[in-house]
Amino acid sequence: MIAPVKLVYETFGRLNEAKDNAILIFHALSGDSHVSDEGGWWSKLVGPGKAFDTDCFCVICANTLGGCSGSTGPKDLNFPIITIKDMVAAQVPLLDHLGIKQLVAVAGGSMGGMMALQFSVDYPGRSQNIIAIATAAKSSAQNIAFNEVGRRAIINDPEEGLAIARMIGHITYLSEVSLTNKFGRKIQEGALASQKFGDSLFEVESYLKYKGVGFTKRFDANSYLYITKAIDLFDITNDLSRGEGRFLVVHFTSDWLFPEYQALDIVDRLKDSGKNVSYRVIESTAGHDAFLLEEEKLGVAIKSFLAGAKS
Amino acid sequence: MIAPVKLVYETFGRLNEAKDNAILIFHALSGDSHVSDEGGWWSKLVGPGKAFDTDCFCVICANTLGGCSGSTGPKDLNFPIITIKDMVAAQVPLLDHLGIKQLVAVAGGSMGGMMALQFSVDYPGRSQNIIAIATAAKSSAQNIAFNEVGRRAIINDPEEGLAIARMIGHITYLSEVSLTNKFGRKIQEGALASQKFGDSLFEVESYLKYKGVGFTKRFDANSYLYITKAIDLFDITNDLSRGEGRFLVVHFTSDWLFPEYQALDIVDRLKDSGKNVSYRVIESTAGHDAFLLEEEKLGVAIKSFLAGAKS
Repeated sequence: MIAPVKLVYETFGRLNEAKDNAILIFHALSGDSHVSDEGGWWSKLVGPGKAFDTDCFCVICANTLGGCSGSTGPKDLNFPIITIKDMVAAQVPLLDHLGIKQLVAVAGGSMGGMMALQFSVDYPGRSQNIIAIATAAKSSAQNIAFNEVGRRAIINDPEEGLAIARMIGHITYLSEVSLTNKFGRKIQEGALASQKFGDSLFEVESYLKYKGVGFTKRFDANSYLYITKAIDLFDITNDLSRGEGRFLVVHFTSDWLFPEYQALDIVDRLKDSGKNVSYRVIESTAGHDAFLLEEEKLGVAIKSFLAGAKS
Repeated sequence: MIAPVKLVYETFGRLNEAKDNAILIFHALSGDSHVSDEGGWWSKLVGPGKAFDTDCFCVICANTLGGCSGSTGPKDLNFPIITIKDMVAAQVPLLDHLGIKQLVAVAGGSMGGMMALQFSVDYPGRSQNIIAIATAAKSSAQNIAFNEVGRRAIINDPEEGLAIARMIGHITYLSEVSLTNKFGRKIQEGALASQKFGDSLFEVESYLKYKGVGFTKRFDANSYLYITKAIDLFDITNDLSRGEGRFLVVHFTSDWLFPEYQALDIVDRLKDSGKNVSYRVIESTAGHDAFLLEEEKLGVAIKSFLAGAKS
């Protein structure tokens, strides 16, 4: 057991007197609590008049346990293997601390979607709505395989390995067609035909290198190990029937990291146990990253889902 | 210019007196000349009575320039960046040496398919038939991206990096569904729930580790750099019209490393320049590796294509 746990969080919008207007958003693998305002990863979705309307709702987002943005993580102490369940459990004392008995919604994409599903199972009724985006009820063999290659690179060399893990990640976040549209076979400006290995010849190579190296400046290699392992261990398939509330499951057509069969698996299991489930498929060429990039279409789906909740 | 070049090759079946019954097969990235007999990578396709029938044909397969199975490669000398064109050109003196003026066919899968297409363009008419399997007229941004991550791992640490590159490769060779069917979330026997990073918890992890480490025993990290770079540089789209002969293009449905649009790109370009092209799509869940695993279905397609050549 890890105690005490420090949890760093942000809020957007005001918690009302009844403390019944809060929405808890869970971030993905490399995300953080800064879900809105300048530089926020869902700033087009969270704010005044937006899908998660901070004129009405108080949106809360905490840095995950095991991460490296302020909450307790492997940087701070000798850390055990943790699970998505642990990461969710670490945020419940925050709700208690704020005096929130019931949330309007929990929501998240990718790992954040896993956390939203886990919340619904472990704290049934504590959120009226559960929004799970670009996610799965369990990590697939392919999900685990990509994570394990990244971890192996990190174990061999934490800094360079983290860059490699992030490069692999980026390929899986983008669709084949988006990589083709964005880069194709464009040659990096100034690159010579006859080059040294390690220099970037194609633009896609320098893009990945930039993303990989940049990531090492802001992320902790140990957090990457622990969080990816938590994702691998996630398998809530046999527990989904315990959830309560209204569910929204969103899939993006070109997301091959979490293909549609995984979204439908969530939907089918929830329906089989009689839950109220809405399912939205959003057309996008952006791949898994669509949950961060297709904010407009996603906003429409979320807004209409939450509007249905009120009526 | 690299000279002299040593080329190690094998033959299966007998070259007839007219020297007009030869088929040249090109191997893929990690393949070698041992295309048939015990342990041969296409032994179900190449042999007496098989699709490449060694009762009729003399099948030739050479280790590629740049590789590490005997032919000249970066192990031997200070090696320049080479291309698929170079790798094909290195095999033409072998044909001359054997007195072969015209081949019955050139054939290959993956990189071998690129080489077959390159042969058709650079030596028009020197092969009556061209068989390009699970391949592309040019490497895509995603192809390049995966190769570059592997190269970066190798540059950082040749041995461990080669294992990582191979692990990435293996994920891309298998389909999502084949990984799920083969491994799913099966736990490795003897693995503890609470484990050290680096130990394999899931079977898919130990499979990849085994494949990665095993590869370092038989393959040279520098060859991996040079050959993947040659694959990245391959773009024959504007040259295909120069090819002569009958073409067979084969795609496997679950191959996401070389998706169907890439096969169709070859077919369309060949047809647009008036070539004789057969296109076969083979149902398979095996992913890109189908070109090595679906030998029975592939054999039927090749046999019927070559039979058509004779009539």
